[in-house]
Parts: sequence; C-alpha cells; structure tokens
Amino acid sequence: MTRTVYVNGDYLPEDQATVSVFDRGFLMADGVYEVVSVLDGKLLDFDGHLVRLKRSLDELSMDNPLSDDDYLAAFRALVERNGITDGMIYLQVTRGNPGDRDFAYPPAGTRPTVVMFTQSKPGLADAPAAKTGWKIISIPDQRWARRDIKTVQLLYPSMAKMEAKARGVDDAWLVEDGLVTEGTSNNTYIVKNGTIVTRALSNDILHGITRAAVLRFAAEAQMQVEERSFTIAEAQAADEAFITSASAFVMPVVEIDGAAVGTGQVGPVATRLREIYLEESRKAAI
Amino acid sequence: MTRTVYVNGDYLPEDQATVSVFDRGFLMADGVYEVVSVLDGKLLDFDGHLVRLKRSLDELSMDNPLSDDDYLAAFRALVERNGITDGMIYLQVTRGNPGDRDFAYPPAGTRPTVVMFTQSKPGLADAPAAKTGWKIISIPDQRWARRDIKTVQLLYPSMAKMEAKARGVDDAWLVEDGLVTEGTSNNTYIVKNGTIVTRALSNDILHGITRAAVLRFAAEAQMQVEERSFTIAEAQAADEAFITSASAFVMPVVEIDGAAVGTGQVGPVATRLREIYLEESRKAAI
Repeated sequence: MTRTVYVNGDYLPEDQATVSVFDRGFLMADGVYEVVSVLDGKLLDFDGHLVRLKRSLDELSMDNPLSDDDYLAAFRALVERNGITDGMIYLQVTRGNPGDRDFAYPPAGTRPTVVMFTQSKPGLADAPAAKTGWKIISIPDQRWARRDIKTVQLLYPSMAKMEAKARGVDDAWLVEDGLVTEGTSNNTYIVKNGTIVTRALSNDILHGITRAAVLRFAAEAQMQVEERSFTIAEAQAADEAFITSASAFVMPVVEIDGAAVGTGQVGPVATRLREIYLEESRKAAI
Repeated sequence: MTRTVYVNGDYLPEDQATVSVFDRGFLMADGVYEVVSVLDGKLLDFDGHLVRLKRSLDELSMDNPLSDDDYLAAFRALVERNGITDGMIYLQVTRGNPGDRDFAYPPAGTRPTVVMFTQSKPGLADAPAAKTGWKIISIPDQRWARRDIKTVQLLYPSMAKMEAKARGVDDAWLVEDGLVTEGTSNNTYIVKNGTIVTRALSNDILHGITRAAVLRFAAEAQMQVEERSFTIAEAQAADEAFITSASAFVMPVVEIDGAAVGTGQVGPVATRLREIYLEESRKAAI
C-alpha cells in the first residue's frame, strides 16, 4: 500500500510528498520535529508532544502554523488512511520556503512547512529487545549546545548510531565532560540500590516526554528518583540501566562498553517501569 | 525571469525544484554544501571548492555522485541558463532518499541527492561595505564539534546572524573557551604591527577556500602570517580586522562589540588583500 503523507494541508501519495529545495529545513536544518507513538490505533502522550513542539518553535522564534485541533485531526486522518494499528507519527515543522537562500530568517508571514507521515510498526510494544536488553557503547557528545530544542540537526546522532552498529551494539551513550548526556535519541538512566538516577533537565539534553511520564509513574510507585548526572563507570557499576524514548518506551540496557550492568540481564526496575508506562499510556491514549 | 535549478540531473523551473520529504537532507541535516562565486560569468576557485566537497563527503562516508567534469558542466549550464554575470552557485549533496526515516544510514547504492542553484548578485565584487567595513558582535559558539565538515546544520549560524541584525550590526564572531573560532559563515583575521593573525585549521573551524587563497597571496606579497587563536580583546586592540568568505571575498571589520578596531576605518592590509584576491581570482577563474 502506498503511504499517504501530509504536506502543508495536502494528503499525498508518498512518492509525491515533496518540499521545495529552498525550504529552510533542507538548506539550513531550520526545523523541529516530534515523534508520537501509536498503539491500538491511538496516540500516546499527544498533548505532551504538542507542548514540547510549541516550546521548540518558541525557542527558535518560529510560528506555530496549526492549532492543536488541526494537528490532532491530521494525526487521526493519517492513522486512518494508512491503517496504522501500532507505529509512529512523525511531525516536522520548518521555517518554510522564502524563495531563496539566506542565513537571515525570512520575512514575517512566510508560511512554515508542515510535514507528517506514519511508520507502521506492528507489535511496537512487544519488541523482543525489551526481554534481552540493549548493549551500548559510549562516545563523545559532539552535538550543538541546545539539545533541549528538538531540531532536525540529527547528523551526529546518525553518526553515533552507525558507530554503534559498526561495533555490533544497539546504541551509543554520549558523554560530555566525563558525564553521560543522553543516548542517540533517548534519555538515559541507571538504578543503584533501588534509586533511579537520571540527568537533570537543562539545555544539555532533550526534555523527554516519555522521561516525564516515567518519572511521574516511578514517583507514584514510591520509587526513589535522583535527578543528577552520572559517569560511564558509575553506570557500569549500577544494578540496572535503561533508556526511555517515545518509540522504545522503556528499554533495558545490559552492557556498556563491553561491561555487564548488574547481572547482565534485564532487571526488575526497568521491567516494572516498562509495564507501568505501557499500561498507563494505553489507558490515557486518545 | 524564472530561475532554472538543477535537481538530480534535471534542469527545472525553480517552483518545480523539489526533493522528497524523506530526503535525509530534510529529515536529518545529512548533507553538505559549497558556495562558488561567479564574476564576469566565470567560476572562482572551482577546484578548491570541489576538493573541499569531496573532503566533507569523505568525512561523512558519503558517496560523491558526480565527476568533477559533471559538476563543472552543470555549473556552467546554470550560469548560462540563468544569465549570471556576478553571483553565486550553491551546491548541496545529501545522503539521498531511502524511502523512510531512520537514524541509520541508508543501504549502499542509495542515490545521493544533488541540488544546485544560482543567485544573481550584480556588482558582487564592488560591495559598498568593503569601503566602510563591517561592525560585528561576539557571541558564544554553540555549534557542533565538526565545523571542518561543511554540513547544512546551519541553524546556529542563522540564529547568530539574526542576533547581529537585532543589535544593528553586520555579523557575529563566535567565541569558544575565550577564543574566536570564526564568523557566522566566514573565517576571521586580525592585523597587528603588520602581522596577519588567523586561527589555525582544526575541526573547530571551516577550512576556508578563500582563506587558503588569501594566505597564499599574503605570503607571496611578503606579509607575515601567524596561524594561532586570538581573543576578542586582542581583536579590539588590533590595527585591523577582517573576514574572508567565498562570497564576501575579503571584508574589513571596523568595530567589535562597540569598540573601534584601529582607527575605526578600513585599513590598508585588508584593502590590499581584497584587491590582490579579486585580481588573482579573476585571472584564475574558469
């Protein structure tokens, strides 16, 4: 089946879904994005993703081209037209096409570009990796300083993912000044003596929507949470490690730079948090 | 006149020049570019720009989709079709359209995307600003760590340009660890007691094609050149300051963060280097 893609209000067959070569998303990476998961045809954490989208746009002085209702209607139309049961919806907003290339932003009133598409992932919530855990490596964090803005400047995360692949593991954790910032596209956690440790929010990391939900559920389940940075050595010596993201949910990490974390098996905290997250998110999905 | 734009071998009217929304240049800033100036209908430093393009592609493990002759033929066709006397040719190569979004690179054999377009700038070499000089501000350098690769991750330089504009000046110099790296899209220089000082090449700055030519011409003219980093305070206390880029050539800087550089007027070294660069580049243009 040909996928239907949303481009600036039009629903198009994927091979006709195009943007101008003058679009600032293409020429200057001047755009932001969100990825929302779909389970049983319903949207997970939709409101949270829209709030973050607006924050990213605000931080870059970009207009938000659609209302919340418009985004919701388009998301639902794409789920429907593409027959998505489990999968993701990708949304990108760029500063638009001013008709030529210039470092300066285009004049006020230049229409932002909005692109949305689906990715079908049957069994998304039942990823076998959740039972065996990820192996990861650490590499230096060479990204720009404003990782709190979810921009399409994803070249370094791509390079990191390829480095992980080349070294036979699942992902890379990025390290700056000796401390873990985050994974290639996920937030990072360790568990020691029952306490969940994760880096505090700042411009250094993405403000994960799944992170916020998981920390809320952890607190509700009376788990201890400490928001502070940690080293790779501390992570290797932890009882458990895991990551969160909108599409991997909660994913255990069992090996870091060749060293087993804890028993080297998926641990109870990550397993429990994954269960709670999926259960609560399914309940709240719209 | 409608501009003719090159997209993957086709010459198209600019309003039909598009790329897929799945192009990695649009989704992940996974692309590199070059800008070549045109004076009197001829290409400046064409070979140098192609060498750097190949280096950028190599650093990112991307294939170079065209031969040097193909690039040259396309550049000349665009100059011809668009009637360019003075202006620029922009060239972008991305990792192409693998048909879906993934952090991992697409399979070998995925065709890179090649886009080229012209910008007509009559009197490009006679910019009035060359007589009066630029005023600049300094701001922190928040870009990623591989500025030697000329990627389309240009959001921060755009933000810096807008900050400069908002503060009523022409450009911003970026500062890291107390030292100037470069301008928003140019290399930076100061002159003190007849010696030209510019930051040495590394991953911290772009390896400017115009920089290389200007340093060669300076050496041939028996000028002293020192390749080392400098601070904003040292630049403010210098006799002259200037920048180089493919489209601004050599441009004097007369004010930094509100402080006049030297006399606050355009100085003799920048003026002479601009003359030599334009004269020699016109001679060697193809």
